Amino acid sequence: MAYFDAASSEPLHPAARSAFLSALEEGWADPARQYHDGRRARLLLDAARETVASVLGVRPDEVSFTTSGTQAAQLALLGTLAGRRRVGAHGVVSAVEHSAVLHAAELHESRGGEITRTVVGRDGRVDLAALAADLRDDTAAVALQSANHEVGTLQPVAEAAELCAARGIPLVVDAAQSVGRIAVPDGWSVLAASAHKWGGPAGVGVLVVRKGTRYTSPLPYDEREARRVPGFVNVPAVVAAAVALGAVATGSDEENLRLSALVDRIRVRVPEIVPDVEVVGDPVARLPHLVTFSCLYVDGEALLTALDRAGFAVSSGSSCTSSTLTPSHVLEAMGVLTQGNVRVSLPRGTPEAEVDRFLAVLPKIVADLRAVTGTASAGAPVAEAPEAPAADEGSPALVLDTLGRRCPIPIIELARHIGDIASGAVIAVLSDDEAARLDVPAWCDMTGHEYVGERPGETGGVAYLVRRA
Amino acid sequence: MAYFDAASSEPLHPAARSAFLSALEEGWADPARQYHDGRRARLLLDAARETVASVLGVRPDEVSFTTSGTQAAQLALLGTLAGRRRVGAHGVVSAVEHSAVLHAAELHESRGGEITRTVVGRDGRVDLAALAADLRDDTAAVALQSANHEVGTLQPVAEAAELCAARGIPLVVDAAQSVGRIAVPDGWSVLAASAHKWGGPAGVGVLVVRKGTRYTSPLPYDEREARRVPGFVNVPAVVAAAVALGAVATGSDEENLRLSALVDRIRVRVPEIVPDVEVVGDPVARLPHLVTFSCLYVDGEALLTALDRAGFAVSSGSSCTSSTLTPSHVLEAMGVLTQGNVRVSLPRGTPEAEVDRFLAVLPKIVADLRAVTGTASAGAPVAEAPEAPAADEGSPALVLDTLGRRCPIPIIELARHIGDIASGAVIAVLSDDEAARLDVPAWCDMTGHEYVGERPGETGGVAYLVRRA
Repeated sequence: MAYFDAASSEPLHPAARSAFLSALEEGWADPARQYHDGRRARLLLDAARETVASVLGVRPDEVSFTTSGTQAAQLALLGTLAGRRRVGAHGVVSAVEHSAVLHAAELHESRGGEITRTVVGRDGRVDLAALAADLRDDTAAVALQSANHEVGTLQPVAEAAELCAARGIPLVVDAAQSVGRIAVPDGWSVLAASAHKWGGPAGVGVLVVRKGTRYTSPLPYDEREARRVPGFVNVPAVVAAAVALGAVATGSDEENLRLSALVDRIRVRVPEIVPDVEVVGDPVARLPHLVTFSCLYVDGEALLTALDRAGFAVSSGSSCTSSTLTPSHVLEAMGVLTQGNVRVSLPRGTPEAEVDRFLAVLPKIVADLRAVTGTASAGAPVAEAPEAPAADEGSPALVLDTLGRRCPIPIIELARHIGDIASGAVIAVLSDDEAARLDVPAWCDMTGHEYVGERPGETGGVAYLVRRA
Repeated sequence: MAYFDAASSEPLHPAARSAFLSALEEGWADPARQYHDGRRARLLLDAARETVASVLGVRPDEVSFTTSGTQAAQLALLGTLAGRRRVGAHGVVSAVEHSAVLHAAELHESRGGEITRTVVGRDGRVDLAALAADLRDDTAAVALQSANHEVGTLQPVAEAAELCAARGIPLVVDAAQSVGRIAVPDGWSVLAASAHKWGGPAGVGVLVVRKGTRYTSPLPYDEREARRVPGFVNVPAVVAAAVALGAVATGSDEENLRLSALVDRIRVRVPEIVPDVEVVGDPVARLPHLVTFSCLYVDGEALLTALDRAGFAVSSGSSCTSSTLTPSHVLEAMGVLTQGNVRVSLPRGTPEAEVDRFLAVLPKIVADLRAVTGTASAGAPVAEAPEAPAADEGSPALVLDTLGRRCPIPIIELARHIGDIASGAVIAVLSDDEAARLDVPAWCDMTGHEYVGERPGETGGVAYLVRRA
């Protein structure tokens, strides 16, 4: 099995595993106790905090261990908003933050706060001019990830921090995808990270609050972890997390270069060997280990299943997977194709041969899936244009009713029938599938047809209009 | 080292340790993923949930795994209060709940809610008549622990549940101290527990919400764990927790009887071999493994340190320990002596010989500490009563100024000088130490003098008045 889902969870680092086993023996007692076992746990906890602080370039007393990366990210945003509630209840988050941050933002809204979701470009990077315009006198905090977890694009953290600093607003950085791989640019006030993303165990997150930042815990009072995280501190897991971070931070440059070259191989080769593919995310300013692409006319879940059967564990931002009926909010915010989406994120140490094997099996897997729906040959089965005159936009020459049918069916139907209308004529795809709003324009981009726009469907759903090239 | 602090954290059960190691290999991936490693993690998680549900006698889909017992207890109270916020914002908690629950209650108050802290007797048990009187039409939830974590007293959960049910109010039970040892009585709606208290690893709590109970998560949305606990599920730790629970639940009756006999030995012997000791908590309706006693004229921290040096790890609810300047809220609510407090909680498998060794060394340790302050001989160094006439209560015959001095000094001074006044005369102890409010009356109970009451001190602090017997 080739595990290509490191962005979800990196397998436990061997050094972390050994440290974990030792710390289960030595560090299980309450580090707040004064007896021998407690003091020993405290020493381990202090050492772990120093290791993490050292890698992050902060002071140990700025570091609190949380019970997950999600908790760290949510506390980071909510605690910073609460700490500045006298300034105002407005927060700004990028539209492509991890759902942990977006759900925290929604909780803030549900309690009377206001959130602006700042836009990103087609590459997934926040638009700094838009961000600057989103800042207000009552903005209590801004949240921006260090790098996007689905497409790998690095965010302009340093520039965003400058914008925020000029207005005295703290910047909260969800650095879950980059800590342990690449340094987080300076200028942030609060940072969150997740140990199991860097080869530590699950159950440990890191919340860093820089000195001078106002932070008010949204959780019940607890004297532990600088009063930021209630509950018994999980010392063995924290020790393992710190050991993993120390291990991966050492020599990460070399491994980053190696993985980045493998990612480049995927970025370059996939569009060469698989027709109708869109590789998304910034090709240069990106995480070293992560690449995302989408395949036209392919059901995301079917693709994951076929890859799993071929021995590859990947994830997908497509809507048509068993866990969701809506496409990834990241792909949506970028305005890119969502069907047949595959995220490959390489764990440290991924053998080159596994990537080559992936590239070897992918074309046939995609072709087989397309064969089932009659979209196997290069692109769509476009027929000769009939001689019929072009209809105006108000009355499409052809309406494809795909109501009730899920991604990728609407796009498959569109591709199958675009040849039924004349060049310059308009075809309407009637759909109630969320993904169609993204995928119809993306399909037009990829095939050279013109996306005209959408209007409410007369019999429900939305009519997406496409003019044949 | 004899570890007698199981109520804080039970050492990891050997079966849990093996399961943990296996699950770190087999269960590290995201159980929400559809690929092989994810499905394997999901199977382990499902099996763990079934084990825990089976031991607790509930349905698996009623069980959510949290990231700590503290989180479970706090979600239990806050989620139940939020689920019934249309009924009202009033909650009732016992005054002797774990601080995790009390801090959650304080957060509820800080957000505009109202909390009644229902009283307990000198044995630490809630007063059911008082509880009944505390219930109101706008009471959204009641929280009552299954057993007290500091003194071991079992709470009348079944009776409280009946009172609540009669008024349609859900009962929240923090069962952290009893799950895995004794069954929780029926009738509750929401239950919280903590894996590292039963021999599982840290980082796992259990939140059970019975069907039909309204529960609204106070945390950001997350689809995992029945939408109750955000973040990546820590499958390896959950697996280990479930294995530990299954292991300790099997055959716990026998071990309970054995530990209970050891606790009885401590309960009976300590007052026989150590003068001026108060053993607190219900002697019969109690946890099998836990006993608490307090020693007059002894500094709690010094006692812990001396016991640690002698090879015993215990905890203390005294104020004079390094982590706090206020005495345990449990001892305070019970109105019992707080100085020289020792909680002994025996882990499963504690050898009888360790308890006997504890009983062998304790008298000399206490005597040595008392010798330092001149209170070594049986009780206080009471002199002959002088012939002076008794003063009235308004003007004490003697005022002891102990302002700025911490527990147990005010009581030591009181014991040293009670003999300076005549029988029937009043001595005033002027103190600004929180513990004095509890310890002066407790000292009077133990020595036969009469506690008259308190009044504001003229030069600050509080004057506690004692009439010599």
